[in-house]
Amino acid sequence: MELTVYLAGQIHDDWRENLKQKASEKNLPLQFVTPQTNHDRSDQIGEDILGKQPNNLYRDDAASSINNFRTQVLMQKSDVVIALFGEKYKQWNTAMDASAAITMNKPTIIVRPESLIHPLKELSNKATVTVETVDQALDVLAYIYE
Amino acid sequence: MELTVYLAGQIHDDWRENLKQKASEKNLPLQFVTPQTNHDRSDQIGEDILGKQPNNLYRDDAASSINNFRTQVLMQKSDVVIALFGEKYKQWNTAMDASAAITMNKPTIIVRPESLIHPLKELSNKATVTVETVDQALDVLAYIYE
Amino acid sequence: MELTVYLAGQIHDDWRENLKQKASEKNLPLQFVTPQTNHDRSDQIGEDILGKQPNNLYRDDAASSINNFRTQVLMQKSDVVIALFGEKYKQWNTAMDASAAITMNKPTIIVRPESLIHPLKELSNKATVTVETVDQALDVLAYIYE
Amino acid sequence: MELTVYLAGQIHDDWRENLKQKASEKNLPLQFVTPQTNHDRSDQIGEDILGKQPNNLYRDDAASSINNFRTQVLMQKSDVVIALFGEKYKQWNTAMDASAAITMNKPTIIVRPESLIHPLKELSNKATVTVETVDQALDVLAYIYE
Amino acid sequence: MELTVYLAGQIHDDWRENLKQKASEKNLPLQFVTPQTNHDRSDQIGEDILGKQPNNLYRDDAASSINNFRTQVLMQKSDVVIALFGEKYKQWNTAMDASAAITMNKPTIIVRPESLIHPLKELSNKATVTVETVDQALDVLAYIYE
Amino acid sequence: MELTVYLAGQIHDDWRENLKQKASEKNLPLQFVTPQTNHDRSDQIGEDILGKQPNNLYRDDAASSINNFRTQVLMQKSDVVIALFGEKYKQWNTAMDASAAITMNKPTIIVRPESLIHPLKELSNKATVTVETVDQALDVLAYIYE
Amino acid sequence: MELTVYLAGQIHDDWRENLKQKASEKNLPLQFVTPQTNHDRSDQIGEDILGKQPNNLYRDDAASSINNFRTQVLMQKSDVVIALFGEKYKQWNTAMDASAAITMNKPTIIVRPESLIHPLKELSNKATVTVETVDQALDVLAYIYE
Amino acid sequence: MELTVYLAGQIHDDWRENLKQKASEKNLPLQFVTPQTNHDRSDQIGEDILGKQPNNLYRDDAASSINNFRTQVLMQKSDVVIALFGEKYKQWNTAMDASAAITMNKPTIIVRPESLIHPLKELSNKATVTVETVDQALDVLAYIYE
Repeated sequence: MELTVYLAGQIHDDWRENLKQKASEKNLPLQFVTPQTNHDRSDQIGEDILGKQPNNLYRDDAASSINNFRTQVLMQKSDVVIALFGEKYKQWNTAMDASAAITMNKPTIIVRPESLIHPLKELSNKATVTVETVDQALDVLAYIYE
Repeated sequence: MELTVYLAGQIHDDWRENLKQKASEKNLPLQFVTPQTNHDRSDQIGEDILGKQPNNLYRDDAASSINNFRTQVLMQKSDVVIALFGEKYKQWNTAMDASAAITMNKPTIIVRPESLIHPLKELSNKATVTVETVDQALDVLAYIYE
Repeated sequence: MELTVYLAGQIHDDWRENLKQKASEKNLPLQFVTPQTNHDRSDQIGEDILGKQPNNLYRDDAASSINNFRTQVLMQKSDVVIALFGEKYKQWNTAMDASAAITMNKPTIIVRPESLIHPLKELSNKATVTVETVDQALDVLAYIYE
Repeated sequence: MELTVYLAGQIHDDWRENLKQKASEKNLPLQFVTPQTNHDRSDQIGEDILGKQPNNLYRDDAASSINNFRTQVLMQKSDVVIALFGEKYKQWNTAMDASAAITMNKPTIIVRPESLIHPLKELSNKATVTVETVDQALDVLAYIYE
Repeated sequence: MELTVYLAGQIHDDWRENLKQKASEKNLPLQFVTPQTNHDRSDQIGEDILGKQPNNLYRDDAASSINNFRTQVLMQKSDVVIALFGEKYKQWNTAMDASAAITMNKPTIIVRPESLIHPLKELSNKATVTVETVDQALDVLAYIYE
Repeated sequence: MELTVYLAGQIHDDWRENLKQKASEKNLPLQFVTPQTNHDRSDQIGEDILGKQPNNLYRDDAASSINNFRTQVLMQKSDVVIALFGEKYKQWNTAMDASAAITMNKPTIIVRPESLIHPLKELSNKATVTVETVDQALDVLAYIYE
Repeated sequence: MELTVYLAGQIHDDWRENLKQKASEKNLPLQFVTPQTNHDRSDQIGEDILGKQPNNLYRDDAASSINNFRTQVLMQKSDVVIALFGEKYKQWNTAMDASAAITMNKPTIIVRPESLIHPLKELSNKATVTVETVDQALDVLAYIYE
Repeated sequence: MELTVYLAGQIHDDWRENLKQKASEKNLPLQFVTPQTNHDRSDQIGEDILGKQPNNLYRDDAASSINNFRTQVLMQKSDVVIALFGEKYKQWNTAMDASAAITMNKPTIIVRPESLIHPLKELSNKATVTVETVDQALDVLAYIYE
């Protein structure tokens, strides 16, 4: 049984590639989908498609409508959502995606370091599973196939 | 027509009292419901009810289950959600509540200062309305009754 | 049994007041809710609350988010939707509201003149009832109480 | 990941063929589905199948039930909806389809010329993305695969 | 706790009045709602409101749209549905209403005589409760308040 | 695009085989699923699997639970439902299946002879399309692929 | 804000009266609804209403359809569900009710003694809150009103 | 038409292998999915992935979150659920899974010995079909393909 997994979270390092690589090594029948991970492209996509906007607010709003479109399409096609929080950045999009997934009854794994236990406590409690590392998230996925 | 409004967001100042006061002055038939706004009580509620937990992780998890219970009850009874972001704090709970409300098709107003336009752009784009001040949020509510 | 009725459609004449008056004369226990019927206020509400926008596109987008908020709140509280089409104007909002109501399984009455049979045929077919006059729509509502 | 895209909107020029051609050139794994684009067939389908109806109202009602059947089947199978508005025609069906798609939480792109910003402002605000040209709509679809 | 009960089924005798009378004698806090029980009015309501139709098919279709409107409004407001089958008549509307109620997760009681056990076996099996008399149906309602 | 079509209705003649044959001749990519069409097997399936029941009521209830199981599985997998009414038999199961399909938002075609217009008027009005012959139903399905 | 609370669980002692009494002493605006707590009546209700059944299986099936009817009506009217497990009895109905409530997104409190931690671990993990005593469950309800 | 079947119930004997073997012999196009059937692994999975927990309560909670994740993923992918109760064990998970499946409108077969008729009567009544042996459950599945 192939499963599609949406990988929400920060786009500032290569944690997704790392996870895909390890899933591949374990021969797990998982298809991963992701938001745009090129940060500049993600910020510019509104103006890239729609042209120059009058100010930063509307530049951001144009970009976000297209990023939200991508996320909505891919999350609706997914069977599982993994949302990773790191030590840096505001990461409100990660909280937004995780909460949307949970509210849609998508099985959801939150990955967060020990240092974030307190600020993420309500979201962790609502998630299906909370772990501390990407490897642990993959172990949870692999457990489905045991 | 009376409406029930859930007020999500930080609990470090009296913005909710301010909003209720102004709604009352305008004679708007609004009932406001809120999370626990006593920050210490919110953090301790798990141990207050269930007793001492073995460490901070479980202390937080116990508290969060009861806070989530309160939020779930009150948000399901609400017709409208207002989610306020301030300049400080991580505020992942605010993002979580706003995203849950939007996903449940609750009409949702986000209040955020100009400085947060960029990090909140995807959430703002998904919300029904985004404004910058509590007074503007109240103007939006009042507009229903014009 | 009191019912709440949302009155969608053009805001260029007093058909809503006419309908409310007749319902009152028949002592029907109906509560009517409506969009903003002051056309200028409806167009300006974005700038009235959020301040001057950079151009007409964003002026319209700001207004529409607040008009959509009002419609979403009131339509969710409604038991029945009446959508009136007249001979003039584009009336895409009327089609939008009627289609949203039908998709949400709200019992929906479309009022349209004979001249619009052809262009509205698919929407009429999806609506619960289609009539030609406001008086006929009121007759349909009154029939619930016979 | 193959996606199915429903193309709502006017059937008076070849914009759909144009879009399919360009999607094919970009090797995007998209399957397009559409309403009946032969306008005469669309108007006559009721009598073509059910035989002569007593007048234009019932001729239209018979045709519309079969057109609505086709749209309901294909839209339910679709992952994305694109709704195009042109400068001419009433296009209430386009507004109806776009509003139904948005209410069903289908990710929806509206294509409309600058001249229609004002009359379509509420529908645009509810759509996931609004663009001005078919090429831009295709760019939004292509962005999913970057 | 007041409950609203929709009474589906044939309209050829006074079983509804009988049931209401007995519920009243037991002081049960039940509000009963019903289809149009005047058979002629039910058949003529289309032409009564919309005027003369071109033939019997369209006369029936006009009437049924208004009867369906009434049923949809009242069933959505109901907490419980009782559907009574008698020995005579086709009663497809009763089967339609019972099946719609069950599919909407409305708690549903079917009342049918012993002679109809076989033809109603699948519908009875899907209903929440099946009884043979109106008095038994009332006993089931009364049981909620014990 | 392959579609799955559930064929509800009486099981006393070979209308399903007739329909499948014609669909095959037209090379339509349709997969048909059906209730048990062996009438004796359908009535005996409860005792065939569960053993002798104490009386006819329980024999029927046992059979109906297994017939309902089959219908629920297959209807949930279907994209379209066709429900055929003939001149004979009570056919409450056909009304039950059609109403369940409509309530689940399955696009639904009712096939009924002219003689049944009046008793089926409310169900016909709720269905997506109503036709008089199996050939017409197939024409409606074929129209999706034009 | 008044809330309705469904009290699922064993019916062999007076824990419900105890809870109601304490809620009353705290002046909490709670309305409690319950299953039939007279155990004999609960087992006999099928035969009490429908008459003698042919064996124990059908006696139980008749009773359970009426008990399920009561539970479905009252749970759908409830805002919160409390499910209490004691040290004795199989209590599959309690697990059934708690799981149904959780799946319907009702905020759910499980009360279970420490000795049942292990066998109830998956259900506890899915519930919104798990506590060990009825007093703690009431504290959780009271927390909503702080 | 291939169907996916979730096999809920006790994990203390090889009933699942027995069922799969017989389904294979009958060439039924069924794909079976299951919970973790290695009992020790199921109890230890929390600590296996997340490391040592402070006490048995949290060891169990960690394990259950991962078991619930697996069940949620696989049950959402399933077309049918079979839930088997044996003579031993508390089996609250089996009741929880069956009730969740029924509430999600999954067609559900309960397998239980005659000795459990009374304590399982309400759950059996809500299930689509109840049988006494695994062979009978397979007969019900096979009936879909006749």
